[in-house]
Amino acid sequence: MPRAVREQQMLDAAVRIFGRRGYRAASMDEIAELAGVSKPLVYLYLNSKEELFGACVRREAAALVDAVREGVGAASGERADRQLWGGLRAFFAHTAERPDGWAVLHGQARTQGEPFAAEVAAMRAEVLAFVTSLIVAAAREAHGDPLLPEREVAGLARALVGAAESLADWANADASVSGKEAAATLMRFAWAGLGGLLEGRGWDPA
Amino acid sequence: MPRAVREQQMLDAAVRIFGRRGYRAASMDEIAELAGVSKPLVYLYLNSKEELFGACVRREAAALVDAVREGVGAASGERADRQLWGGLRAFFAHTAERPDGWAVLHGQARTQGEPFAAEVAAMRAEVLAFVTSLIVAAAREAHGDPLLPEREVAGLARALVGAAESLADWANADASVSGKEAAATLMRFAWAGLGGLLEGRGWDPA
Repeated sequence: MPRAVREQQMLDAAVRIFGRRGYRAASMDEIAELAGVSKPLVYLYLNSKEELFGACVRREAAALVDAVREGVGAASGERADRQLWGGLRAFFAHTAERPDGWAVLHGQARTQGEPFAAEVAAMRAEVLAFVTSLIVAAAREAHGDPLLPEREVAGLARALVGAAESLADWANADASVSGKEAAATLMRFAWAGLGGLLEGRGWDPA
Repeated sequence: MPRAVREQQMLDAAVRIFGRRGYRAASMDEIAELAGVSKPLVYLYLNSKEELFGACVRREAAALVDAVREGVGAASGERADRQLWGGLRAFFAHTAERPDGWAVLHGQARTQGEPFAAEVAAMRAEVLAFVTSLIVAAAREAHGDPLLPEREVAGLARALVGAAESLADWANADASVSGKEAAATLMRFAWAGLGGLLEGRGWDPA
């Protein structure tokens, strides 16, 4: 089996164990066993528990950003709210499909010190930049010119990303909540607001 | 000096060090030094690094829930959006005033295993229950009867709390963002939605 394939199997196993047990409690024995390889081989390929964890964080962060970028890109040329909807659908589909990867990124990596925290912060900054540009584009569509001050847009983007993170945790903790439902709830919240929802205004993908 | 007073000084020091260095990197030497006591006295009062951390988590969680409860309560009898505004103002004022406490709760405790994660989850559940009851009350005001399904309300509450957490991190990382500004941004986002904001509808405390 080529090294690259074997390495991905080790990372698959590691993401699952780190995501479920947490960084500290995760054992290299269990990771090797789940990957179906010997522990010395894991060390030979990935050097240490820390480096293995770092490789998991980088792989999962890149996969998540790619998924969101693709989701937004698939709606490129459409209205900004449709693009946001595409990004949210992709985000929640991805985190539902890879719950352990999401647990590594959102639950573990941020608090295990540097360099992991910096890698997660970089991923989050990329997603924030996406969301910011969508809000600015939506403002342009509405007004011809962004009327929302840059500072307000920065805050709104952070609110939206934080809401998405919270709902991804919820959907992953409650098997009855699908990624699509979480995305739709957030889109209604973000686009129509509570006030709009209560007045019967919502948000509709059409 | 009475034991209770001395213990609070130790907790003050511990929250600052845990919040800034993280749980693992925090040293009992530094905590004792900052508290102006000997390290054996810290151990005599609080037994271990783990128990000291647990005492910090409990104190900070209780203080945050109290602050939010008071903020909502101060607007009791007013419209639901005003009560939410009161709660958000209190939340952001509190996290701005105690940034290290917020870092312990939101950044550290959730990923240090049990029982810390359970204590933070309990605090979050209490705040979620508050927010849920405010959304239900708002729906009653709007319709006489809550038209939003319970499940949708649960999702909206999680979106709002996640947005608040994200903005608290932002306000604490950027000294130019005040707690009041973060609260106002979130209230506009939550109440008017992006769509409403772009059409010039906002949310006004009056």
